[in-house]
Amino acid sequence: MSAYFRRNIAALAGYVPGEQPRDENVIKLNTNENPYPPSPRVIAAVTRALDDRVRLYPDPEAVGLRTRAAAHYGIPVDHILAGNGSDELLALLLRATIDPGDRVAFPVPTYSLYETMVAVQGGEPVRIPFGDDFGLPAALRTTGARVTFCCNPNSPSGTFVPIDEVEALARAVDGVLAVDEAYVDFARDHALRLVGRYPNVIVLRTLSKSFSLAGLRVGLAFGHPQLLAGLRTVKDSYNLNRLSQAAAEAALEDVGAMEANVARIRATRAVLTGGLERLGFRVLPSEANFVLARRRGVDQAPVARALSERGILVRHFAVPELQDALRITVGTDEETAALLTALA
Amino acid sequence: MSAYFRRNIAALAGYVPGEQPRDENVIKLNTNENPYPPSPRVIAAVTRALDDRVRLYPDPEAVGLRTRAAAHYGIPVDHILAGNGSDELLALLLRATIDPGDRVAFPVPTYSLYETMVAVQGGEPVRIPFGDDFGLPAALRTTGARVTFCCNPNSPSGTFVPIDEVEALARAVDGVLAVDEAYVDFARDHALRLVGRYPNVIVLRTLSKSFSLAGLRVGLAFGHPQLLAGLRTVKDSYNLNRLSQAAAEAALEDVGAMEANVARIRATRAVLTGGLERLGFRVLPSEANFVLARRRGVDQAPVARALSERGILVRHFAVPELQDALRITVGTDEETAALLTALA
Repeated sequence: MSAYFRRNIAALAGYVPGEQPRDENVIKLNTNENPYPPSPRVIAAVTRALDDRVRLYPDPEAVGLRTRAAAHYGIPVDHILAGNGSDELLALLLRATIDPGDRVAFPVPTYSLYETMVAVQGGEPVRIPFGDDFGLPAALRTTGARVTFCCNPNSPSGTFVPIDEVEALARAVDGVLAVDEAYVDFARDHALRLVGRYPNVIVLRTLSKSFSLAGLRVGLAFGHPQLLAGLRTVKDSYNLNRLSQAAAEAALEDVGAMEANVARIRATRAVLTGGLERLGFRVLPSEANFVLARRRGVDQAPVARALSERGILVRHFAVPELQDALRITVGTDEETAALLTALA
Repeated sequence: MSAYFRRNIAALAGYVPGEQPRDENVIKLNTNENPYPPSPRVIAAVTRALDDRVRLYPDPEAVGLRTRAAAHYGIPVDHILAGNGSDELLALLLRATIDPGDRVAFPVPTYSLYETMVAVQGGEPVRIPFGDDFGLPAALRTTGARVTFCCNPNSPSGTFVPIDEVEALARAVDGVLAVDEAYVDFARDHALRLVGRYPNVIVLRTLSKSFSLAGLRVGLAFGHPQLLAGLRTVKDSYNLNRLSQAAAEAALEDVGAMEANVARIRATRAVLTGGLERLGFRVLPSEANFVLARRRGVDQAPVARALSERGILVRHFAVPELQDALRITVGTDEETAALLTALA
């Protein structure tokens, strides 16, 4: 890479997202998208917003969307910040808090973007290995990190940590605790009740998964206003475009549509889990819209490649501790049946 | 602000964008939006893209949009990067290049976001004052900066620096030269011919101004692939949503619509300039879609407030060197006439 870059950037490979094929006939179970469409109100709202007003800047504060989110989640509007996907909100948090050499802690394996973002800031990652059951490692409480990430449900394991354990972690750490709830609508509980009560807690949500809006890039951060103030300072003013703001507001006006999709996905998740177990995989109990399927000691890279050749994409991670695992998104019943047949 | 933040963030006020009123009857001449709508093909393209595919992630590489941009601008597709507005691209550049203490140079007054972004990185701003004619200051060549910004046409002055002077600057500096061409479609020339020939040149464009798409947040960076590689490393994977990608691609398929709007705005710019001069303002020769109008030594803050009370927003900057100036966007002929009447 060219000589113009910071040393840590020049050395960095960057985050590699899951493959986004242009062939629409592929069965896409690799990036945890929702197989079902969003509420019809979303399309209607974007259609209403789609006129000559696209020439005007969007609301930099996304007041309409945040007001709607406040009503739905029962969180004051000044405790909410809207982002261009929750990835942007994660990046804003680290940009606001991490100087070169500062520690950022997270259990591993987890969402690998954290690792990339810490490297971009020049921070020092503190990786605390999960045990076999993916319970929250006790060592996470005493890392001295400025920011601690807790992805809950965790990716790629799908496992869920009870909120009283998350709350204990919030009390124990000196720095910020970021609870990444990208998948939480598929789980039994969530951490929003910690927001505002703990000045160091920020909860991150996305509309990409449960709300079926990955293509429109909308995330929400919930936290104490003083904590959000730092993120606002480093965010691009007009970070969220007009149409995505309209779409997200409409999605939050029809949460029933999301919940119906979530119910279907949970039912299929049980079928997928059972099917994989019958094929000899060990499947961790998932509270997300994907499962992690393992064959202890058996490299799954060739399996992922063979599935890809059959037009089915699943996610295999090229790291030693996940060599024997596949992360498989819960698709429709038909997609799940096709996957199980191909695996058999 | 809370104790969780980096020192430079806690001390930082953040960039203050121009007011975005919710009242649609206001005459809005404060943030350099285009008064005319985009090509009808933009609305048609977004409508076509607006279906169940919103559940899927967008193309992280925006290949369709970049291919279209490559064809239109005559620049290879691997020399182009798409951003969530050119503001994101500016931020990516500094995030990839600036460590705490590194110098970033720019003439002043200019786009005040540079100042904010340098502070976010903990960089050291090197401000080289423009002379009265807003020619490129010679001292800009010898700052030792890792990044030098040249906003051309410059905001808030509207003035344009000939491209051979920009080229000489590219040769003279050791670091990256970022030519911010947000307003260049309103000017006589542009710097795209420097792209690729100088490995340190990056040219930034936006579809917000000339293409009437401020609401959809699309920017393009043109530069050597090795230079863009650093920006890619620090960008969010899915930085540009599906609908904005579709809109921008369609806009670049109907450049004639943009050019017709630009021609109208240029004609109105001449009327606005003449009218302001007749009212006693000194107006710098503008090649942008706004003008900087001055009354030497006379504070224009009260004038901006009085206009605002009449429902006309213009931009007054709360810095000493622009105390006696107003930046006024070129609106429609009717808006311009209303402004001149109110000022009289």
